[in-house]
Amino acid sequence: VTGLPAWLNGKLVADATLSASDRGFLLGDGVFETMRTAGPTILWLDDHLARLRAGADLLGIPLDRNPTEIADGLAELVAVAGLEHGALRLTLSRGPSAGRGLVPPLDPVPTLLASIAKLVPAVASVSLVVAKSVRRNEGSPLSRAKSLNYGDNLVARREAILRGADDAILLNNRGLVTCATVASLFFKLDGRWVTPPVGDGVLPGLARQRLIGLLGAGEESVQGAALAHVDSIMLSNSLGLSAAVSLDGRVFVAENFAQLSARLFGGP
Amino acid sequence: VTGLPAWLNGKLVADATLSASDRGFLLGDGVFETMRTAGPTILWLDDHLARLRAGADLLGIPLDRNPTEIADGLAELVAVAGLEHGALRLTLSRGPSAGRGLVPPLDPVPTLLASIAKLVPAVASVSLVVAKSVRRNEGSPLSRAKSLNYGDNLVARREAILRGADDAILLNNRGLVTCATVASLFFKLDGRWVTPPVGDGVLPGLARQRLIGLLGAGEESVQGAALAHVDSIMLSNSLGLSAAVSLDGRVFVAENFAQLSARLFGGP
Repeated sequence: VTGLPAWLNGKLVADATLSASDRGFLLGDGVFETMRTAGPTILWLDDHLARLRAGADLLGIPLDRNPTEIADGLAELVAVAGLEHGALRLTLSRGPSAGRGLVPPLDPVPTLLASIAKLVPAVASVSLVVAKSVRRNEGSPLSRAKSLNYGDNLVARREAILRGADDAILLNNRGLVTCATVASLFFKLDGRWVTPPVGDGVLPGLARQRLIGLLGAGEESVQGAALAHVDSIMLSNSLGLSAAVSLDGRVFVAENFAQLSARLFGGP
Repeated sequence: VTGLPAWLNGKLVADATLSASDRGFLLGDGVFETMRTAGPTILWLDDHLARLRAGADLLGIPLDRNPTEIADGLAELVAVAGLEHGALRLTLSRGPSAGRGLVPPLDPVPTLLASIAKLVPAVASVSLVVAKSVRRNEGSPLSRAKSLNYGDNLVARREAILRGADDAILLNNRGLVTCATVASLFFKLDGRWVTPPVGDGVLPGLARQRLIGLLGAGEESVQGAALAHVDSIMLSNSLGLSAAVSLDGRVFVAENFAQLSARLFGGP
């Protein structure tokens, strides 16, 4: 798709293909990470690999390659791509099925795939709506992992676009705010930064964790109704920061997070 | 995997492969159906295709091939496979990505894949546990569609197996009973059959719908605590019926659903 190579099961390949029986495709049986690269450097690599392994453990997917092997493979891909700023995705699935149904093969051959694309700078300012069509599942451990099951997020994003917005905020089934479709959320409430806690159904984002420290943000449950009183909204993920310009039509003075972004990701 | 051919985007192929950028693999951006075959006959084909289309509409995935084209392709695959009883899976994804992220390509080239395997008769009797690790998301429309996002079900099945059981019952976030990991549930309560309503986060199963008629079953919300009082549990999907022999260690006299199965699916 990008014209760039991929790294698949230990080898650089020009056109990566998968078995159509891959359980990542059939069942969402896998996890992934998205990493920011700057020249040859992969930001926060150790933390990304640790979170990938935690997600794999949750699903019981073996990750036989050790972190050094994976890091070497990713470095090779990043070098060949030669991008100034890249978005590097590493996906692990349980690999091809041995038969029908949910029971995993006794001897799985996992798929480990890395692909890279030019980093498109995060949109500086986005319009948001609160999703009406779907809630985040606070009762699933996968809400706190980065699994391949992005269906609910796709439904929310689709709703946002159909309503003329850029992205959606998802509430959980208790009406508490969780995240946007591909980003953690920070709210300024009475001059303080607040972000929803992981227990409400939130991915423990790597940018999120660092921003909690940088901003002195509190991890606090936020009722959907409290969104009427926030003064500023920041979206964060491992690729960048954005500011909300509006929420359900209410307009904000979007803050400029360029300096904060430079502190978080390095660079000028 | 099965040694049998597949039908991929309109053609019979011996080894079906997908682009590693397929959004079904990367994001769970797709839906599927599993159908029972008897010789050349595909049971409930029209209903399966209608439900596939409803799921595709929910995600906004175009399904350009009309039902007749699809039926012809499936018939060809079923004929070549030559199985007395088969399990036929039809999967639709949005196809390869055009770039990073959730926003779908403007001009998607969906993947439509059918594969077939010998029907393994439903296990006559299964041991169940109520999943503790994961809840079903009643707040997602995908709980009422057959999407590729089986992660929560995988977590529940994994828990069941680790606890020495065959399958798990999922409660939703309100503590109401929903389904097993690949089956609808029917409970005998005070001599009456009851099944949870779709609104509680349940797939509108095709076997389920027919069984409601055959059994005169009521669609009623079932509290998790009420499971202590059920006298019998039946699991149904489009491939077969099973009876529970135990739930969280409490033993049932498993009923024999052979006659009901013959009425539902035809055959001897």
